[in-house]
Amino acid sequence: MREFTGTGVSPGVGVGRVRVMTGSVPVPPAEPFTGDRVAETARALAALEEVARELESRATAVGGEAHDVLSAQALMARDPDLAGEVTVGVSAGLSAARAVYESFGFYRELLGGSGAYISARVADLDDVRDRTVARLMAFAVPGVPETDERYVLITQDLSPADLALLDPAQCVAFVTEEGGPIGHTAILARAMGIPAIVACAGALEVPDGAYVLADGASGTLVLEPDPARVERARAAEKARAEAVGSATGPGRTKDGHPVPLLANVGGPADIEPALRNGAEGVGLFRSEYLFLDEAVPPSEEQQIAAYRAVLEAFPRVVVRVLDAGADKPLSFLPPAAVEPNPALGERGLRLLRRHPEVLKGQLKALARAAEGLPADRLRVMAPMVTDAEEARVFTRACRDVGIQQAGIMIEVPAAAVRAHDIAEEVDFFSLGTNDLAQYVFAVDRQVSSLTRLQNPWRPALLDLMAHAARAATEAGKGCGVCGEAAADPVMACVLAGLGVTSLSMSSPSLPLVRAALAAHTYAECQEAARAARAARTAGDARAAARAALPALETLGL
Amino acid sequence: MREFTGTGVSPGVGVGRVRVMTGSVPVPPAEPFTGDRVAETARALAALEEVARELESRATAVGGEAHDVLSAQALMARDPDLAGEVTVGVSAGLSAARAVYESFGFYRELLGGSGAYISARVADLDDVRDRTVARLMAFAVPGVPETDERYVLITQDLSPADLALLDPAQCVAFVTEEGGPIGHTAILARAMGIPAIVACAGALEVPDGAYVLADGASGTLVLEPDPARVERARAAEKARAEAVGSATGPGRTKDGHPVPLLANVGGPADIEPALRNGAEGVGLFRSEYLFLDEAVPPSEEQQIAAYRAVLEAFPRVVVRVLDAGADKPLSFLPPAAVEPNPALGERGLRLLRRHPEVLKGQLKALARAAEGLPADRLRVMAPMVTDAEEARVFTRACRDVGIQQAGIMIEVPAAAVRAHDIAEEVDFFSLGTNDLAQYVFAVDRQVSSLTRLQNPWRPALLDLMAHAARAATEAGKGCGVCGEAAADPVMACVLAGLGVTSLSMSSPSLPLVRAALAAHTYAECQEAARAARAARTAGDARAAARAALPALETLGL
Repeated sequence: MREFTGTGVSPGVGVGRVRVMTGSVPVPPAEPFTGDRVAETARALAALEEVARELESRATAVGGEAHDVLSAQALMARDPDLAGEVTVGVSAGLSAARAVYESFGFYRELLGGSGAYISARVADLDDVRDRTVARLMAFAVPGVPETDERYVLITQDLSPADLALLDPAQCVAFVTEEGGPIGHTAILARAMGIPAIVACAGALEVPDGAYVLADGASGTLVLEPDPARVERARAAEKARAEAVGSATGPGRTKDGHPVPLLANVGGPADIEPALRNGAEGVGLFRSEYLFLDEAVPPSEEQQIAAYRAVLEAFPRVVVRVLDAGADKPLSFLPPAAVEPNPALGERGLRLLRRHPEVLKGQLKALARAAEGLPADRLRVMAPMVTDAEEARVFTRACRDVGIQQAGIMIEVPAAAVRAHDIAEEVDFFSLGTNDLAQYVFAVDRQVSSLTRLQNPWRPALLDLMAHAARAATEAGKGCGVCGEAAADPVMACVLAGLGVTSLSMSSPSLPLVRAALAAHTYAECQEAARAARAARTAGDARAAARAALPALETLGL
Repeated sequence: MREFTGTGVSPGVGVGRVRVMTGSVPVPPAEPFTGDRVAETARALAALEEVARELESRATAVGGEAHDVLSAQALMARDPDLAGEVTVGVSAGLSAARAVYESFGFYRELLGGSGAYISARVADLDDVRDRTVARLMAFAVPGVPETDERYVLITQDLSPADLALLDPAQCVAFVTEEGGPIGHTAILARAMGIPAIVACAGALEVPDGAYVLADGASGTLVLEPDPARVERARAAEKARAEAVGSATGPGRTKDGHPVPLLANVGGPADIEPALRNGAEGVGLFRSEYLFLDEAVPPSEEQQIAAYRAVLEAFPRVVVRVLDAGADKPLSFLPPAAVEPNPALGERGLRLLRRHPEVLKGQLKALARAAEGLPADRLRVMAPMVTDAEEARVFTRACRDVGIQQAGIMIEVPAAAVRAHDIAEEVDFFSLGTNDLAQYVFAVDRQVSSLTRLQNPWRPALLDLMAHAARAATEAGKGCGVCGEAAADPVMACVLAGLGVTSLSMSSPSLPLVRAALAAHTYAECQEAARAARAARTAGDARAAARAALPALETLGL
């Protein structure tokens, strides 16, 4: 019973024979192409169109969240600028495959300026490139296995396009060696209900056809599990389902320490799932979603309608003002210069300070949307704040329009380090674990081969979060978490133990987190936090936390 | 006597009338071009060639470090791929100016993959673009004033091309509103001996012709200074010159606490200036400089010769193994994927772990180069280490070839936060303040409009450096600093007070740092560090440190 450990991103147990999906698409050689360039160009453009059609038909077949991702990929393949670039490449003497390969770099630049949110989803972009190159090189596109049996899929990484093809009735779980808890693949796996483990080192060593157990809750892949082990996993899965079913009401520990459980939303469409999963409010309203792909900011009336719908549905709503820039460029909020590293560039509040009329307009719309509602219902926060001076400027702008609760995201490491300075300037903090991890580890969250380095269990991140939460507590202010880390029930207990005062996540994750909190005392959460911080690696930190949270076992976690 | 404060990057006092250089090049409109496309293409290519010639003739005129920067810019303007891209743009219906403007994005991608170190020096690249666009739009290129009088130049930012044209006999100082202490402009100003202040907020409000005093040591710009003030500044300058002249011997505080002063070098050519300025050793040998623009790694013999020359010249030499990736791509060390944010991608040790044979080859060459020399002379360190596990892997690789002193750069925030874990795995730390600041503040050091946010005096950075230095001390290990921050004599005293055990910098900065240390006791340095950390802003931190270092006044600092 050899075991491999990765990061569980979609809970559930899958048992079956392994199907390994291997092979990566080679880089096409740069040698000059000596054949007929006109024919070669036609071949390249035909391949792009075929890939676009294939992605579209998959999109139609699957629907839902996957539909949007695949449609966006099809659009990438059909982009006329890309076709132009490929044509130029072949005219300049490249092979069709090489021209396609090289053109994607240019295409990325174009996307960067286009205001499309999808722009920097590099994994998706690379997937389109690889599919086209594979077609042109007559190289088999690594694909989902065709089989009638139930199987556990093991692969290096899994694109949303391939994930969407998986039939949950046959693919009982999937495991990737690369990838991370952030990104489309993990989010889609949860939406489709397929148990999944990512960043599982060594998984590709498991031979095709081997019998395995994949536990998407604990992140464990067990080779040749004995029947008792399988039985245990099944029982745990059942226990988890029961615990989730019976956990209701507001978030709190076993001994009644309250930890409000909130939802991350993008607009009014997300209200219903949040209510259905028992969200006590909204911890992160990503207001930039209302503005995506707009050439001009939406009118005040349009904004007010969207804000009001959410404000009326919940007793507390934290709205993040426009977080544009980096992987979410907005055409009406351009940065001052072309940026070689947009994630380290003008984004969030930095960009809003360059365009103060946009911030002012949004704050005014928010204040108007909250008119007549209880004064503490609307809470507004700024993204990418670096220091106390920036926090002060933002709080003042909120006060100027009558907004009483002004806070900031803690996602720049400097803000976490000097949280005690900032706490005096604002009403609350919200820890943005995804971006904070990106900067603390200096690892791009968009590159799937690196996201394994972004593990939120790494003790350096826990230390900084503890530091910020303590600063908030000492100043008598709240400190929530609104990154993906909050959706991990083990991490949720640790965050509560670190002194975090609310947890916000995508709605489907709320019930399991609620159950995990309800099963432990606050003192147990504190001990789990202490134990995790005393560890040296992410794996040890998670193991130490689990050991300090005895009821996880009964929850099947 | 109104005062403005910025960051002094080149010490010295300039007094005179202001010449303001304003105006930025407009973004060419994207409207379709309806005229003769062939003629328009020719116009675009001619403009690029004219800009290349102008840059070349400036390069020839100035020589030295500026020569290399300007020649590289001329090469950019002459790049055939750029010309091709511009041609395509005009064929597609863009005006010449717009085609040039848009093509630079494509050009940046090409450079990124070309292995040229200069690649990501975005300010330099933007300067070439702006010169060409200005020419095509018949817009005056903002230029250095032509005058026979002595003047103080004030500008938004200053490109190396313009800086190189300044005559130190006439331009007695320059002040920029943007820019930062990192980057070519600051480094060239020191090399040319022109007093300079960057990131000086409000400087452009000073009217043309006003009488000012610019103090490049304190970073102060004084409007209409009275004669006493000018007198004081002159006296300070004289005192500084005398102090520098009389400070000799190893670095140490007034009461004898040793702080070895080391040089940052790129290869054997830098040995002589380091010795001339009294370097006690090399604190940072940027070994990647030997590898730049090479298609294959240099042979072991070539490497050994370069290492040996430096090892024979100094009693201690810290060599950083290949720090490739991000703004220093090497063609034989490609990252696994195209990276939307190379600074957060595979660089430093991450890249070497993907190409272990390159690391092994370099370590072997280093060990052989040190044969027969005292065992502690060669010290080797790894860039971009994130945690203790990576540190352990590197130390083991060094031990495997007999290298006895293995250390790491502390430049990823996580490494600073968990320095106590890492200290047990290595023999020494070296704080890389430039990159550490980049990640801690989440601000790209290459974008000149943002480098003002990268101020090393920001207390969050001081806190993290103090934390790392304390962890080293507690483990009985050394903790040096090898970033640009060490070259600021006030900061140098603070770093010593934080517990840093050696300071490494570009050689011309050594004498003034030596004088500043020699003028203060270790207790004063500690108090300055404490006072700086108690402040909330970079400006207050520096002011507090100065106040705690009384002898700076007598040094004219």
